[in-house]
Amino acid sequence: MIGGRGPVRSARVVRYREERRDRVRDALAVEEPLEIRVSWRGGDGATRAEPLAVTMRTPGDDFDLVAGFLHGEGVVRRRDDLVEMTYCRGGEAQEYNVVEARLASGATFDPERLRRNFYASSSCGVCGKASLDSVEAIGCRPLEDDVRIPLPLLPELPARLRARQDAFDRTGGLHAAGLFDAEGAALCVREDVGRHNAVDKVLGATFLEGGLPARGRILVVSGRASFELVQKAVAAGVPVLVAVGAPSTLAVDLARRFGQTLVGFARDGGCNVYVAEERVRPDASAGGGP
Amino acid sequence: MIGGRGPVRSARVVRYREERRDRVRDALAVEEPLEIRVSWRGGDGATRAEPLAVTMRTPGDDFDLVAGFLHGEGVVRRRDDLVEMTYCRGGEAQEYNVVEARLASGATFDPERLRRNFYASSSCGVCGKASLDSVEAIGCRPLEDDVRIPLPLLPELPARLRARQDAFDRTGGLHAAGLFDAEGAALCVREDVGRHNAVDKVLGATFLEGGLPARGRILVVSGRASFELVQKAVAAGVPVLVAVGAPSTLAVDLARRFGQTLVGFARDGGCNVYVAEERVRPDASAGGGP
Repeated sequence: MIGGRGPVRSARVVRYREERRDRVRDALAVEEPLEIRVSWRGGDGATRAEPLAVTMRTPGDDFDLVAGFLHGEGVVRRRDDLVEMTYCRGGEAQEYNVVEARLASGATFDPERLRRNFYASSSCGVCGKASLDSVEAIGCRPLEDDVRIPLPLLPELPARLRARQDAFDRTGGLHAAGLFDAEGAALCVREDVGRHNAVDKVLGATFLEGGLPARGRILVVSGRASFELVQKAVAAGVPVLVAVGAPSTLAVDLARRFGQTLVGFARDGGCNVYVAEERVRPDASAGGGP
Repeated sequence: MIGGRGPVRSARVVRYREERRDRVRDALAVEEPLEIRVSWRGGDGATRAEPLAVTMRTPGDDFDLVAGFLHGEGVVRRRDDLVEMTYCRGGEAQEYNVVEARLASGATFDPERLRRNFYASSSCGVCGKASLDSVEAIGCRPLEDDVRIPLPLLPELPARLRARQDAFDRTGGLHAAGLFDAEGAALCVREDVGRHNAVDKVLGATFLEGGLPARGRILVVSGRASFELVQKAVAAGVPVLVAVGAPSTLAVDLARRFGQTLVGFARDGGCNVYVAEERVRPDASAGGGP
């Protein structure tokens, strides 16, 4: 947490329950804009800086978020590509809402290419296939990872994630993402009002520690599995993605393209495996290599 | 639905439940990119066209989505500002994934200004206040609407929304938004993998029918209430927003700035009212004017 600003703020609320009307104080999940800027040295030797994106996020772990965002979009690939991150301090109000990430001189950065990626365009136009191609274009390759996860562990993971969600318990308004090892031990858990931000924070923190590609790991998300979340997990080399909710068609297509094990509806003692079931071991013994 | 492409696609899945492993077919919510383009006549009389955004959405009601997106961002305000929408048909695959919206010659459009809005920038920088200011900058004004909603109706609305969610029942993977009148009758319900898209579809359909500003109406959303959703509802002149889940701080701040009644946790016979409780009538009698 930065400058004393936490992920939770108190607000007055009128609560109606069972014919009662009470004025109470309620805890809200904080949502604030974060602008991500990138600075880099161009081919002509001059240093340039450009705003890349604004995301509405819950303050805290901002550098993790920025690192995860940049890695997920293919802007940085190795830990050394990212020299430092700093808050740009302008007026009082924006003190902690702009982060500039400085790239290493060797790192190539082409904002136009990234913009094209954002627009999911390719020779075939705007379509599901072009979206899949764009993930390959940022350097993602099929996941070759022979980790095996014991089946009984899968439906338990969301509860383990939930047990680590401090702010959710108070607000009911935060998504979570967590990286677990093959035995189900939590390695890193982050919360945010945006589920893509929670994933960026977890994978960014892991990236900054030199932990990517995340071989043998499981990424667990508190909501549904969309194209965007699978993309981030594929870019981070995570072999197994577990969602509490449903996956979309494009999430399944993307997982299939890169050989990622995709698990949905992990709850109530069961789950659905959509792709790459070979990493799931029906017996209850601990995970690990083959 | 366009060209036979529905919101649901079938997929093979391995389902684990109660020690059983079954190969079954499961219904998935379809997710595909949609590029939104705008064409308009510039000050020099020349017609220009520019891609504005790509959103990952569930196909169907695409023109509603585009109209709602453009209205929510302040690009179109009156029904006449939007002359027509067409699919741009390039290659086979993208046939229905690019929509161009043609603005009336009187409509002024400044893509740079819109981009600045996306970046939530203002004189005070990047912060919550700047985000609130940006909503005023696209022309939103405080909601003066003296509709009264009977309190017992509020916790019932999510179930009424859910009852109209055809595709959710099959996939479990779609968000919904619905516009209701003050007596709780559903006027328009839409589903999408993205909750912001579901809201754009509902408000866009209402806009195209000349139904905005949506005086006296209630917007119900299946998830949480974020800044973005409140912004869309404020831009559409909706006086009451009801969410099944929690609101964020910035959602509450924005609702307060524009005098929108914001209701959260509407379920299990109760709800929380965060802002503008005066539109809630504790008795059970039908809604309407003062």
